[in-house]
Amino acid sequence: MSLSLLLEHLKKTAALEQVAGIISWDQETMMPQKGAVQRAEQTGVLAGIIHQQNSDPRIPEWIATIDEKEISNFDKVNIKQAKRDYDNATKVPEKLAQTIAKASTEGQMIWAKAREASDFKMFSPALEKLLHLKREEAQCLSDNHDNLYDALLDQFEPGAKTDTLLPLLEGLREPLVALREKIAGKPKPKIFEGSFPADQQLALTQKLAKQLGYDFDAGRIDISTHPFSSGGGGDSRITTRVDENDPLNCLYSTAHEVGHALYAQGAPDPFLPAAQYCSMGVHESQSRFWENQISRSRPFAQWLYPEMKSHFPELNISSPEEFYRAVNKVETGFIRTEADEVHYNLHVLLRFELERELVSGNLEVKDLEAEWNNRFKQYFGLDVKDVKLGVLQDVHWSVGLFGYFPTYSLGNIYSACLDKAMRIDMPNRNQDIAKGEAANTLNWLREKIHHKGKLLPAEDLIQSATNQAPSAQPLIEYLEDKYSDLYNL
Amino acid sequence: MSLSLLLEHLKKTAALEQVAGIISWDQETMMPQKGAVQRAEQTGVLAGIIHQQNSDPRIPEWIATIDEKEISNFDKVNIKQAKRDYDNATKVPEKLAQTIAKASTEGQMIWAKAREASDFKMFSPALEKLLHLKREEAQCLSDNHDNLYDALLDQFEPGAKTDTLLPLLEGLREPLVALREKIAGKPKPKIFEGSFPADQQLALTQKLAKQLGYDFDAGRIDISTHPFSSGGGGDSRITTRVDENDPLNCLYSTAHEVGHALYAQGAPDPFLPAAQYCSMGVHESQSRFWENQISRSRPFAQWLYPEMKSHFPELNISSPEEFYRAVNKVETGFIRTEADEVHYNLHVLLRFELERELVSGNLEVKDLEAEWNNRFKQYFGLDVKDVKLGVLQDVHWSVGLFGYFPTYSLGNIYSACLDKAMRIDMPNRNQDIAKGEAANTLNWLREKIHHKGKLLPAEDLIQSATNQAPSAQPLIEYLEDKYSDLYNL
Repeated sequence: MSLSLLLEHLKKTAALEQVAGIISWDQETMMPQKGAVQRAEQTGVLAGIIHQQNSDPRIPEWIATIDEKEISNFDKVNIKQAKRDYDNATKVPEKLAQTIAKASTEGQMIWAKAREASDFKMFSPALEKLLHLKREEAQCLSDNHDNLYDALLDQFEPGAKTDTLLPLLEGLREPLVALREKIAGKPKPKIFEGSFPADQQLALTQKLAKQLGYDFDAGRIDISTHPFSSGGGGDSRITTRVDENDPLNCLYSTAHEVGHALYAQGAPDPFLPAAQYCSMGVHESQSRFWENQISRSRPFAQWLYPEMKSHFPELNISSPEEFYRAVNKVETGFIRTEADEVHYNLHVLLRFELERELVSGNLEVKDLEAEWNNRFKQYFGLDVKDVKLGVLQDVHWSVGLFGYFPTYSLGNIYSACLDKAMRIDMPNRNQDIAKGEAANTLNWLREKIHHKGKLLPAEDLIQSATNQAPSAQPLIEYLEDKYSDLYNL
Repeated sequence: MSLSLLLEHLKKTAALEQVAGIISWDQETMMPQKGAVQRAEQTGVLAGIIHQQNSDPRIPEWIATIDEKEISNFDKVNIKQAKRDYDNATKVPEKLAQTIAKASTEGQMIWAKAREASDFKMFSPALEKLLHLKREEAQCLSDNHDNLYDALLDQFEPGAKTDTLLPLLEGLREPLVALREKIAGKPKPKIFEGSFPADQQLALTQKLAKQLGYDFDAGRIDISTHPFSSGGGGDSRITTRVDENDPLNCLYSTAHEVGHALYAQGAPDPFLPAAQYCSMGVHESQSRFWENQISRSRPFAQWLYPEMKSHFPELNISSPEEFYRAVNKVETGFIRTEADEVHYNLHVLLRFELERELVSGNLEVKDLEAEWNNRFKQYFGLDVKDVKLGVLQDVHWSVGLFGYFPTYSLGNIYSACLDKAMRIDMPNRNQDIAKGEAANTLNWLREKIHHKGKLLPAEDLIQSATNQAPSAQPLIEYLEDKYSDLYNL
């Protein structure tokens, strides 16, 4: 009885969160500009109701009367998640939560202006305020006040700790720097030239998404400034963007978001918490897998290149192999979101270390720009001449997202673990992929990851899917193999 | 203090209603088909929360402590509306409200199937059930159990009574029948022939909407099965539909929905009840005014015909006058939504009398089809051979909308009252309209109707705008003048 009341309550909360997701999607894709003021009010009211739902005092009462011995594993996880959401909603005083929400909205606006003006000082007071508030929040959330950063990280990667993440992620640094340095002196591949009409990019994008297994009866693709995926179950939408000078942006951001959406479409139940995604790191593993291990692979170029050629008859690339080389060009640059596979995690590592120091108080906001630029020079060999290409490039910190960045690298690590295991399980995968057939690949992920929801913690989920404890080794091997071959190292 | 708490509460309710509006709009325009089950849950949860908001026991407590002498007219109306919504939400037991909601959803599904199968008997049990439930609801709502129909009517047209509506609406019957009979023997105007590409229809539609004053920064036009308008204030959206064989459907349904949306965009506040639309009849007066008095007028043909010609170069109509005649063709038909201005209200009158008899118990559902067909023959001179063209044509009763139909004719009556007054106030309106300039017309409506919100009851609002008590006379005169000229009567 208590269990069914609890589940009904959780379902209601999930439905409200889905509604919040839809109006947020609408805001980024459909809403007329003058709707912004009303939308802010609508979003705030809904957030308040969801907070009430999560902090409903009946939740611990229901849970206290449920006999855990009598119930399924699935429901145990539902209860665990309800407890977790209840704790998160009640440990942080409502006043503080509201102050943080407001400071995040303001922070993003100020960040956008500061970035536009390439002026870090314009942004630093807002960042300082947010950092202060997020430390306060972490103190409320954390049972152990020693590590505030872990309390923030835990929001995105449940159960993860700096102490265990650090060796995993830091293990990437040396091999990636070595790889980058070996590639640096090698001849560059041909690059894409010409103009790529928007309608053709979108048509190709639809075809690509379908080919990867995205169910258009349970989703749709629209345009937004920054690509994202949202929703879940029967309504898992994605967005993309189009740059007529660069077809790869639209193509690979779609493959990335399709990866997220396939995970969402594969959830075993649209509402209950135990059926939802395991962690942000696992979510990112899905997007990066379909973006990199599949869509940027040599076999997939066999399918994708002729499609490119048919959509862009004047394409200056003349074979699948040349296409494969072009879409895997390695080049040191300033921007994380434009980084190739070799550089990407180095960008994340920089942020991971800086945000840990910010949260611990070892680094002050006033020194952040200089520190970013110093370390960027040290790790990437480039001078940051414009802060817009430096510390102001990412939105995350401006909206209080501290502890989010490492999940990107975790996603890359997990995707390589999954890829390695899948190749053992499916020796013919490359032949399928070369024909554009992804159904077996998707089914493997459905069974081992998507249908598992939150039943296992992230590390255990990856271990159960791959029969190995997750480590950075598969990613390092994958990158070394791929790029040694590409660049004749 | 009580007042500000009440207003804050009302604003929150309005924000939630807007959210419900957005997800309903999304459902009709954007949602992938597999999202339906989740959407039903989301909609239900939101409806429950809105019901809680409206029935919050603090509402009468707040109201009881407000000194009405101390507050503005605007806030008096806010209070009145809060009281009204509170009464409506609390007089009907939650169990009954839920049963009705469920029966309406089922009713619509069964109706759609019965219509498809042209089988009234398939639908009649569901209708009987709904009618029973709506009578029960009316008993709860009505302080005076004598007239249940008035309790239902009041939901759409606050304060309206059958006794006062009846002479107003019935006054239309004789002159309209006479007009129809005079037109019947006259030569028919030329009709539109050819194919009208969807993209051109949509382009023209955008241009038309803009010309009528629709603010695209506060709205957007999309496609749906049935055109509708939704939202309000800075986010007032409309939909249209496209039939490649019939450009008038898209054109005039857009003009109609633009009329609704101009009213919504002109609301003086996006949230507070006193700032919202006065009644369904007044809302319909706005849509019908822009659809008929403006967009189907001879002067507007001067602007619209060349636009048609440029969007459809092969148009078989060769002058603004011929265009004007073609879009005002009078022809007796079965379907209300396709009816011309002369027949439209006769369709409404039929429904108005039948639904009064259904609610009062003078007519039984089992006799409805036969009764519809008898009276249709009597009033329109046509035999209904297919129930899909008869009593199954409208969705309204299948979702429990009894008391809604008369607001359509009320809208036509009001639109003619406004048109008459406006022509006196603006003797040059026709010259403006012939150039496609509608700004003065819109400003007149903004000032006299839109900005007034709910400050006055519908009849008083029309009286204040026109300096005359509303009557059917302006509509009769308008129709007799227009069609006597068109058909040389």
